[in-house]
Amino acid sequence: MEPGETKTFTFKATHPGAYMYHCALSQPWHHVAQGMYGAILVEPRGGLTPVDREYFIMQGEWYTRGSFGDQGHQEFSQTKAFAEQPELFTFNGHASALNQLFRLEAEVGETVRLFFGAGGPNLGSNLHIFGEIFDKVYSGSPETFLANQETYHVPAGSMAAFEFELDVPGNYVLADHALYRMSRGAMGLLLVSGEHDESLYSPPAPRPGE
Amino acid sequence: MEPGETKTFTFKATHPGAYMYHCALSQPWHHVAQGMYGAILVEPRGGLTPVDREYFIMQGEWYTRGSFGDQGHQEFSQTKAFAEQPELFTFNGHASALNQLFRLEAEVGETVRLFFGAGGPNLGSNLHIFGEIFDKVYSGSPETFLANQETYHVPAGSMAAFEFELDVPGNYVLADHALYRMSRGAMGLLLVSGEHDESLYSPPAPRPGE
Amino acid sequence: MEPGETKTFTFKATHPGAYMYHCALSQPWHHVAQGMYGAILVEPRGGLTPVDREYFIMQGEWYTRGSFGDQGHQEFSQTKAFAEQPELFTFNGHASALNQLFRLEAEVGETVRLFFGAGGPNLGSNLHIFGEIFDKVYSGSPETFLANQETYHVPAGSMAAFEFELDVPGNYVLADHALYRMSRGAMGLLLVSGEHDESLYSPPAPRPGE
Repeated sequence: MEPGETKTFTFKATHPGAYMYHCALSQPWHHVAQGMYGAILVEPRGGLTPVDREYFIMQGEWYTRGSFGDQGHQEFSQTKAFAEQPELFTFNGHASALNQLFRLEAEVGETVRLFFGAGGPNLGSNLHIFGEIFDKVYSGSPETFLANQETYHVPAGSMAAFEFELDVPGNYVLADHALYRMSRGAMGLLLVSGEHDESLYSPPAPRPGE
Repeated sequence: MEPGETKTFTFKATHPGAYMYHCALSQPWHHVAQGMYGAILVEPRGGLTPVDREYFIMQGEWYTRGSFGDQGHQEFSQTKAFAEQPELFTFNGHASALNQLFRLEAEVGETVRLFFGAGGPNLGSNLHIFGEIFDKVYSGSPETFLANQETYHVPAGSMAAFEFELDVPGNYVLADHALYRMSRGAMGLLLVSGEHDESLYSPPAPRPGE
Repeated sequence: MEPGETKTFTFKATHPGAYMYHCALSQPWHHVAQGMYGAILVEPRGGLTPVDREYFIMQGEWYTRGSFGDQGHQEFSQTKAFAEQPELFTFNGHASALNQLFRLEAEVGETVRLFFGAGGPNLGSNLHIFGEIFDKVYSGSPETFLANQETYHVPAGSMAAFEFELDVPGNYVLADHALYRMSRGAMGLLLVSGEHDESLYSPPAPRPGE
C-alpha cells in the first residue's frame, strides 16, 4: 500500500475475545517495532457483562540507539531488538501517556474491565495494579477465566481482559511487574475518587508533625 | 551410558498430558542446550477426542560463539547461555525444518491438535499462528483448557496442546510471537489447501495490473 | 519509617489466594531488588483442603557488579538490573538455602501444597520438580486451577500454589526450568523417604560391578 491509499477487506469474526492485530507484510517485526499494531474486541453473542468502565491499553517496547531519556529523533537499533534489550516502554504509545498525560479516572464502587495487550515486538508484560487484586482474568473467552489474580503474564502478541471492582479511593499504579521497566515508561495511573471505607483499609497513623 | 549402550526402565504413567522429557544427568542444562530432549504424550483413558491431524513441534534455542548465519561447526558459548541470549532458534531441531524442509500440510475443514513444546534450555515460546485463533489450549489435562487463545506462552520445560479448525485455505505462519526470533528460525509453515469461502474472509481487491 | 520504628495498618482481605507483598515507597524496584518482599496467604472461608505438608518458597534474582561466586560484599549493578541480566538466583534469600542448608523433607504417600512466588524484581520463574507432575496449579483462587502441569510460569510479582502427591522416594530437584539459572542458585531439594513401589517406577539395572 502506498501512503494515502485505502483498501478494504471483510471477515467473519468467529471467536469472541480481545485480540491484537498488526500487519504481516514482510518483515512484520520491523513494523510492529514501530508501533504499527492495535486492539480489536469481538464480543460474544449478547455482549460481555456490563461494567461501569472499560479501558484499552497496549504496552510496547522500543529499541533505540540512544538511551532512555535522550531527546530528539532516535534511530532504530536492530542489535538491541535481536537482544530483546529495549531502551523504553510505553503504554498506548508514549512513555508518559497514562502516568502524566491521560491518567485514567474512576469512582469507588465502579466495576472495571481493562483490556491489556502486549504489542511487543518481543516482550510480554506482567500486569499488576498496586493495591488491587483482579476478580477475573481471561485471555480469550470469558468462560475460561482465572479468579483472584495478583499479576498476570500477557505474552507478546496478545490481549487479556482484567475485571475488578474499586473499593477504596486512591491513586492506583498500573505497571509491568518486571519492576525496572516501570522506571522507563511501563507504568500508568488510575485515579479513584469517592468515600473512604475504614473497614476495608485503615492506613498507619501519621507521625507527629506530618 | 556409553555410546551404543542401551538401558531399560519402566514407569506407570499416572498423569495424562503432553510432556517434555530430557536426561537429568549432571549437568542437565548442557545436555538440553545440545538438543537432547523430546516429547511424550500420555493419553487419558479412552484417548483424546479424535482430530484429523496431530503435529508435534518443539522449539529450542542455541548458543553459539558465531553469529546466526555463520557456516560450519559452531562452538558452544556458555557466556551467551548464561545471558539467555541465543543466536538461533529451531522448530524440531533445524532453523529451516518447518518453513522450508518439511512444511506441514492440511485441508480446509480439518481439525488439528498441535502439541508444541519449549525445550529451551532457557526460553519459553509465545506460540501464535498468523490468521488463526486456537479453539482450546491446555498444558496438561484437556479438562482445564483455556478457550479462544490468540497467543499462548509455553514455559521452557513444558508442552501444551493447541486445538483449532481450518476454515480458509492459505499458507499459515507458525511463530514465536517474540517477533525478532522469527527472523532467526522460530517459524514454520502450515499449508492449507481447499475451497475458499468468501463469507469468512474476503481479501482486498488487487490493484489494476496486479 | 526509621530503623526500629513500627507502624500498624489494617485491611480486610477480600480475595482468597496467595500473594506477594512488598513496599511501594518510591522507588519500589530498588527495595525489591534488595529482597524486601514476602508472601501472604488468604485462605478461603473454611480453609484450603488439608494436605500433609505446606511449603513457602520465593525466588529472587540479584544484580551485582561482581560475578556469581565472587566472595564478600557485592555492590548493586543498576546496569544489570535494567538489562534484566542477574548474576545469581535465590530460593528464600540464599543461593544454597534449599539445596544445601535447609532441604525440604517429606514421606511417600504425603500430599504437598507448595506456595511458590517470583519476587523478581524483574524475572518470572518456570517452576518444575524433576520427576513430578503437579496435580493442580492455581495462581489465585483454587477454584480456577489447571490440572497436570509439568512446568508453570509464575510471573514476577506473584505467587502460585502447586499441589502434588509423593509416590516414589528419592531426592527431587525443584528448579526454575530456565535451566542455566539452576547453576546459579535457582534450585532446591525435596528429600522424600519411604517404601519404593516397583510398579510405579523400575530403574535401569546397574552395570556389572556397579
